[in-house]
Amino acid sequence: MSKLTPQSQDFPKWYQDVVQMADLAEHSQVKGCMVIKPYGYAIWENIQKDLDARIKAAGVQNAYFPLFIPQSFLTREANHVEGFAPECATVTHGGGKELAEPLVVRPTSETIIYDTYSRWVQSYRDLPLLINQWANVVRWEMRTRPFLRTTEFLWQEGHTAHASKEEAETEVKRALDMYVDMDRELLALPVLTGKKSEKETFAGADYTCTTEALARDGKAIQAGTSHLLGQTFAKAFDIKFQDEKGEVQHVWQTSWGVSTRMVGTIIVCHGDEKGLRLPPRVAPIQVVLVPIFKTDEDKIRITQELGDLVQTLEAHGVRVKFDERDNLSPGWKFNEWEIKGVPIRIEMGPRDLEKSEVVVARRDTSEKNSMPMADLASAIPDLLEEIQANMLKQAEEFLNSSIHEADSVEEMKKILDEKGGFVKAAWAGSSDDEKIIQDKTKATIRIISDEPLSKKGTCILTGKETDQLVYFAKAY
Amino acid sequence: MSKLTPQSQDFPKWYQDVVQMADLAEHSQVKGCMVIKPYGYAIWENIQKDLDARIKAAGVQNAYFPLFIPQSFLTREANHVEGFAPECATVTHGGGKELAEPLVVRPTSETIIYDTYSRWVQSYRDLPLLINQWANVVRWEMRTRPFLRTTEFLWQEGHTAHASKEEAETEVKRALDMYVDMDRELLALPVLTGKKSEKETFAGADYTCTTEALARDGKAIQAGTSHLLGQTFAKAFDIKFQDEKGEVQHVWQTSWGVSTRMVGTIIVCHGDEKGLRLPPRVAPIQVVLVPIFKTDEDKIRITQELGDLVQTLEAHGVRVKFDERDNLSPGWKFNEWEIKGVPIRIEMGPRDLEKSEVVVARRDTSEKNSMPMADLASAIPDLLEEIQANMLKQAEEFLNSSIHEADSVEEMKKILDEKGGFVKAAWAGSSDDEKIIQDKTKATIRIISDEPLSKKGTCILTGKETDQLVYFAKAY
Repeated sequence: MSKLTPQSQDFPKWYQDVVQMADLAEHSQVKGCMVIKPYGYAIWENIQKDLDARIKAAGVQNAYFPLFIPQSFLTREANHVEGFAPECATVTHGGGKELAEPLVVRPTSETIIYDTYSRWVQSYRDLPLLINQWANVVRWEMRTRPFLRTTEFLWQEGHTAHASKEEAETEVKRALDMYVDMDRELLALPVLTGKKSEKETFAGADYTCTTEALARDGKAIQAGTSHLLGQTFAKAFDIKFQDEKGEVQHVWQTSWGVSTRMVGTIIVCHGDEKGLRLPPRVAPIQVVLVPIFKTDEDKIRITQELGDLVQTLEAHGVRVKFDERDNLSPGWKFNEWEIKGVPIRIEMGPRDLEKSEVVVARRDTSEKNSMPMADLASAIPDLLEEIQANMLKQAEEFLNSSIHEADSVEEMKKILDEKGGFVKAAWAGSSDDEKIIQDKTKATIRIISDEPLSKKGTCILTGKETDQLVYFAKAY
Repeated sequence: MSKLTPQSQDFPKWYQDVVQMADLAEHSQVKGCMVIKPYGYAIWENIQKDLDARIKAAGVQNAYFPLFIPQSFLTREANHVEGFAPECATVTHGGGKELAEPLVVRPTSETIIYDTYSRWVQSYRDLPLLINQWANVVRWEMRTRPFLRTTEFLWQEGHTAHASKEEAETEVKRALDMYVDMDRELLALPVLTGKKSEKETFAGADYTCTTEALARDGKAIQAGTSHLLGQTFAKAFDIKFQDEKGEVQHVWQTSWGVSTRMVGTIIVCHGDEKGLRLPPRVAPIQVVLVPIFKTDEDKIRITQELGDLVQTLEAHGVRVKFDERDNLSPGWKFNEWEIKGVPIRIEMGPRDLEKSEVVVARRDTSEKNSMPMADLASAIPDLLEEIQANMLKQAEEFLNSSIHEADSVEEMKKILDEKGGFVKAAWAGSSDDEKIIQDKTKATIRIISDEPLSKKGTCILTGKETDQLVYFAKAY
């Protein structure tokens, strides 16, 4: 195995190395598309399982809509087509013949789903309509990186329709809160939340709410978005209902989604110099057992003991891997499982066996301790919870210590170049003004804070008085 | 709600009605593609959950490969491209520009996956390689029917590579047995199994094993296939390994899959004059509660009782729906839930309430019985198991009584036209001979039996002596 590029030396190269060496994904022979390898896919499955339960608990039902969208559908909403048309893959031939109308491979499914909704919704009794879809989508990207930005990616997209703006806004918030909870509870990731600036708003939405995590290189990474679509698509696709008074109105809509980008988010937010670090709840393997022996006799005895331990831990709900490979040294295995981010490694050698002990190594802190075999059934599940909590605490400390303030664009640029992280500032500028900041600092507005400034401040660029607080950062 | 076409009168129309009236799926605005509605998708999710656990228990890992396949990949294996090229959807433009090489939307993933395997497999230590993918695939079909044949469908495709032919054949059998077990245990469907004739073998496979169920109209329906690919793709994609003696060999491969067609299979195999019938284990709703009342006072008391019953049943692992809609009559609801195939309906009216009883109606037998409320926590789970077993028994009796014998093609035609089902016969014909039978009778060989005739018989068409036993049927 080649050596992992130090994170501190070249973060992008470190990321590439981790994706490859931890066996998460690889580039395919199709430009911009990745192959998600079993270990990477298992992380995604754990995210799916957790999030799907949250989605269902909110009364949202899963369904499935076509991969293909007639090109004419996409053009019905002007902002939407402007945003997505340049990124589309287009099917022009089917069954050997040229199609009368080209089909677009969905870059997102608003248009095909809302055409359907126009037939599903007639009365207030059909509302709210709460649907989610797990699917693949395709956006023709120029520069791609596994998980973070790929031409094809996997995601869920929620699409809801409501009788009033208030109800729709409540749903936008519910979905955002759901992502925040998942980020914290499953992924041990604290996030900042707020609205996007107009420049970064979803194409066709009234506004976009976002969750923003912070990568270890000090860049922000968008980890899930929830959009108020208002009545824009309802009007473009003629989705109307008769209300309780018999009047016909357009519905109010939302959409919200997270993607396989979350796997990349885990890597950049939790990874360290030894590779990936996985929070236990999302880790496909929570505990790896590595036997250490020289003689065949020791091998037999240790294998027996560790085999029993696998049973015990599995019976206590722990996802365990017993690394019995006999062509690799223990040291090589330690290194591999550290790169793969397994939260706990248990080692057992002849001396441990004599004492009925094992050595327990934590991936989050690198601590190693001996523990009696008899305690493991309860100690390991407890330790997994402790690691989960500690990783959240570490990430919170990092995030909190990475939020800075600046009074001028120059000061902001200096902070972002030297330390990274977020810079919060008063802002009263336009989209063009945001572009000026981006050209000068490479940073964009990541969120507009829900909490306005307690007293009015001076916009960092325009000098105008404002109570609007925004967070700038360089971003993925 | 319009009336369900009688099954006995027009089976295809009955099928369409059930799909629509049970809210399973609908045609989309994209030719041949369906929208899978929440109720239909929930059935598919239950199939996925059950099958995914079986797949993982066999040590097979999930992964994900690109949606797009470079056209040149597809052409590397001559039989494969001949089989699939006419059905492909082709992407010619991406990001607004014409592509240097067109991309095919995967009709099946052998080629893109095996190109990857050529890099993953080097040594005997990399084998067996056991991978499964849950994905959407596209085949440009002329005539489509929701679930049974659609341009886009959802499926799982297993792709394995082994060091020897024996191991690969064991895997073909294991996957087939897994499908047989799922069919019986989850879907209450007995199936016939065996090899396909050459004419019906997967494009590129050495041989194809299949599971064949029997629809209520007497037609066979293929419910899952498992292919021995041999070394054909290994040679086309150069998948080689160094064996323990240091010699380089091509791997032996299998692939196997089931699709959303299974939902259609459930409909045609279990449905009756009242609509869909769902085996309890795969039913999204196992028990529906319908209150019957005239006065507000009764409504309040019955709603309270049934609300408590929901809690009780859910605590016992039952999937329950309390139909509280107040704009529909009980009779209307009964009809709807029968069409939707819910295994048990529980009714409670004022008189039932007085006696602390409910009326329990079975969907499988149409029996109605009063039961004390106090017994339901244990009686309902037991009854669900009884219904599951009874539906399997009914399907087995139907299958067994639908297997006929014939000594001549004329006799076979007569049986198939009058009764449907399977006709078993001795067979020594070629693919051309099978085409002759198909032209005369509309039937094809559904399986070649694993058990040869105990003494040689005479081929039903050619008159040649043979011990090969085959099952003919008209098929979906």
